[in-house]
Amino acid sequence: MASALRLRLLLLLAVAAAATGPCAGAGRVDLWPMPASVTRGAQTLLVSRDLKLSTAGSSYADGKGILKEAFQRMVAVVDLDHAINGTYSQGAPVLAGVRVAVRSPNDELNFGVDESYKLSVPATGNPLYAQIEAQTVYGALHALETFSQLCNFDFNANLIELHSAPWTIVDAPRFPYRGLLIDTSRHYLPVPVIKSVIDSMTFSKLNVLHWHIVDEQSFPLQIPSYPKLWNGAYSYSERYTFDDAIDIVQYAEKRGVNVLAEIDVPGHALSWGVGYPSLWPSAACKEPLDVSNDFTFQVIDGILSDFSKIFKFKFVHLGGDEVNTSCWTTTRHIKSWLLQHGMNESDAYRYFVLRAQKIAISHGYDIINWEETFNNFGDKLDRKTVVHNWLGSGVAEKVVAAGLRCIVSNQDKWYLDHLDATWEGFYTNEPLTNIYNPEQQKLVLGGEVCMWGEHIDASDIQQTIWPRAAAAAGMISSICFDLILPALIL
Amino acid sequence: MASALRLRLLLLLAVAAAATGPCAGAGRVDLWPMPASVTRGAQTLLVSRDLKLSTAGSSYADGKGILKEAFQRMVAVVDLDHAINGTYSQGAPVLAGVRVAVRSPNDELNFGVDESYKLSVPATGNPLYAQIEAQTVYGALHALETFSQLCNFDFNANLIELHSAPWTIVDAPRFPYRGLLIDTSRHYLPVPVIKSVIDSMTFSKLNVLHWHIVDEQSFPLQIPSYPKLWNGAYSYSERYTFDDAIDIVQYAEKRGVNVLAEIDVPGHALSWGVGYPSLWPSAACKEPLDVSNDFTFQVIDGILSDFSKIFKFKFVHLGGDEVNTSCWTTTRHIKSWLLQHGMNESDAYRYFVLRAQKIAISHGYDIINWEETFNNFGDKLDRKTVVHNWLGSGVAEKVVAAGLRCIVSNQDKWYLDHLDATWEGFYTNEPLTNIYNPEQQKLVLGGEVCMWGEHIDASDIQQTIWPRAAAAAGMISSICFDLILPALIL
Repeated sequence: MASALRLRLLLLLAVAAAATGPCAGAGRVDLWPMPASVTRGAQTLLVSRDLKLSTAGSSYADGKGILKEAFQRMVAVVDLDHAINGTYSQGAPVLAGVRVAVRSPNDELNFGVDESYKLSVPATGNPLYAQIEAQTVYGALHALETFSQLCNFDFNANLIELHSAPWTIVDAPRFPYRGLLIDTSRHYLPVPVIKSVIDSMTFSKLNVLHWHIVDEQSFPLQIPSYPKLWNGAYSYSERYTFDDAIDIVQYAEKRGVNVLAEIDVPGHALSWGVGYPSLWPSAACKEPLDVSNDFTFQVIDGILSDFSKIFKFKFVHLGGDEVNTSCWTTTRHIKSWLLQHGMNESDAYRYFVLRAQKIAISHGYDIINWEETFNNFGDKLDRKTVVHNWLGSGVAEKVVAAGLRCIVSNQDKWYLDHLDATWEGFYTNEPLTNIYNPEQQKLVLGGEVCMWGEHIDASDIQQTIWPRAAAAAGMISSICFDLILPALIL
Repeated sequence: MASALRLRLLLLLAVAAAATGPCAGAGRVDLWPMPASVTRGAQTLLVSRDLKLSTAGSSYADGKGILKEAFQRMVAVVDLDHAINGTYSQGAPVLAGVRVAVRSPNDELNFGVDESYKLSVPATGNPLYAQIEAQTVYGALHALETFSQLCNFDFNANLIELHSAPWTIVDAPRFPYRGLLIDTSRHYLPVPVIKSVIDSMTFSKLNVLHWHIVDEQSFPLQIPSYPKLWNGAYSYSERYTFDDAIDIVQYAEKRGVNVLAEIDVPGHALSWGVGYPSLWPSAACKEPLDVSNDFTFQVIDGILSDFSKIFKFKFVHLGGDEVNTSCWTTTRHIKSWLLQHGMNESDAYRYFVLRAQKIAISHGYDIINWEETFNNFGDKLDRKTVVHNWLGSGVAEKVVAAGLRCIVSNQDKWYLDHLDATWEGFYTNEPLTNIYNPEQQKLVLGGEVCMWGEHIDASDIQQTIWPRAAAAAGMISSICFDLILPALIL
């Protein structure tokens, strides 16, 4: 946490963007991502050591404590680095608290939930309160994050100050899907590390943790329906219980972050066979999963059934990338099955993906698949499919032209494991390139940066994610990105 | 925190030491550092989700909350990684709590404070309580750390288990000084990062944080007596207020860790002159500090006066290493002063160190100096001097033969910034090499591993400290190190 926070602060200090008014530049504003509209004044306030949260005028009861806990976290972040024990002088106005009015009593974190907010910090008043107005509690969380970025420690007064009041900030995210992928198959990440990643996402207003749970290398998650699956974990202790996963999802939801679970089939699933070897084509040829075996689809059904008790997000990710089908044609019983069903390898790949899609839909999910499924048989995909671009640029325009939804993660720009990918590249990766039709633009749900786990573990994941992920978040969270860019680069 | 913890756990899992009874081997015991005496049984206990702390029978009132907070931290460490929500079955005995009896009401963290403890975990009883007996609360903290290492998460039961009860563990540290150096001059470390380092030290029972605060590169600490000194900080925000330093010391003391503050004079002090240029020999030749200027010693006096309000440890570190005196002979007014006082460069170096020692003593401190001071004029050093070895091996035997005290940090084995220094080297670095006289052995106060800051910052300091610092801690904290070694290496 502390190091992630530090990286965030360094970034904020290092890059200064110019904006006052709706994306219009006038002076330096240290906010990240840049809100849609900012006006400010010239008054310095002192922030009370005992900052109050008021919810007068809210329709939202905060029964789960989402707002109250977020407020406490915000205060802790602001106070974190230094002893705050100065004396309040008589002259300077003191900000006594933050008044939050949430209009909707509904706190379900549905996809596309209204995340907009208005934050006002007046320069006068007694008592003096900042004002947050939001349709939902999740917009209010973003407002608290923005508020925290207005606060600075004063090294002479030993107090927190808030400069340039009065402020009026109006904001809403540019895209509804703003993701970060983590990969717990290549390296196990302890639960507290996953939670610290979730915490750090909120600093940049990212809202989807794409949890690439299992892959070839290991199967760390307990699946009650098929209890031998986590025999494919790296070790006894490098595992997540079913309840750990519920805990992670609840932790994320309280912070406005949905968790997108992935099983990557049929290609990236070798570890499944450690517990159930009949999922392998043969002991000598272990992937993709055996397309000819009904048990394969029973296991997928069991996993997705268990998933539906944990992962409440609208979407589940079914992978579908990098499928090398040679084991299917070199294994006698699968080769016979293909002949019997009149399928070639490509047909079988399509058959597998579409059958897995149907299973996911039967459990109430919309599906996300990696782009190879679209590239190979896009017209056959269920209309509930979201195509996840990763191979390169130019894919989103084809996907939305075909009427499907798309998420952008082109590896040349947004793969965090590519250490030579620069923050400028992250920042300038426009998801709507060559998409001009507003209806088609709406089909681009957003973007996602991917922290694949082959070369990172708990000790360096945060340092590898940040600050570059924040550069991408500047692009997908802010409508002002194109005006900020020149100030950043020049 | 989380990553440091993970490294600790990995270390514990990776190295298994054999011991039952006083340093005698019989089976695997996953405790680190290895306690002085261990016996155990074969009963598995379940650890209550609502573990209680009882202080019945204690003479210690815990007015500062040291014990209570340490207990809460211990429970949090044990529970950290997984959702603990299993069902307690009827058969297995449940450990209800820990009863702590501290004999001394005194909780001052003086150097040499009794850190011994006895920890017993019975296999039967209703209610079933573990028992800790200690002379001081600081021994009890070590016992809680050891207790936490007996606890393991059970992935099937979703509960914490404690295997091999009944346990009887008797322990006391081998050396009274068990240090770790951090360096906030070469890279600034935010306060939360320093606190996380302190937390991690307690896992290996290290008890002195050697804070190398300032050096050539930056002067991050506020010194009220000379308020321009922190003009030598890297930036406005890369600074510690006076109150931050008090906060860090109190945080450490509550965890049984003393903070040893260092100013490294006259050599490593270039940054002092940013705020007070007259401390430099000249604008063209900026170190060592101007030996001819009384103001130099006034500033040292002011710093040590302010230190005495922050740093309550018995010792202060005055550095004294790597002094290149060429600026003294090439600067006209200093050259004149040397001639006038009949001193050559070596005389002036000695004069500086001894005058600084006198100032420190006047503020109530014993002094620690790097070994060059001993190597050059050991017989002139104040008898309150502790010589801090760093250049290589073979120094401690000479220091204690001269009747002075010594701390061992030979760079070839115990410098953490030497990335090619192996954990085996850290583990086998014996501070008492060639010292057989028990009275002389007592003059070796202990050892310290050094995390110099040129090449690390907040993002990787913990990963560079651990796990190798734990290997050194195994040597300086445990009397059983020589019996554990073969099991580790082989």
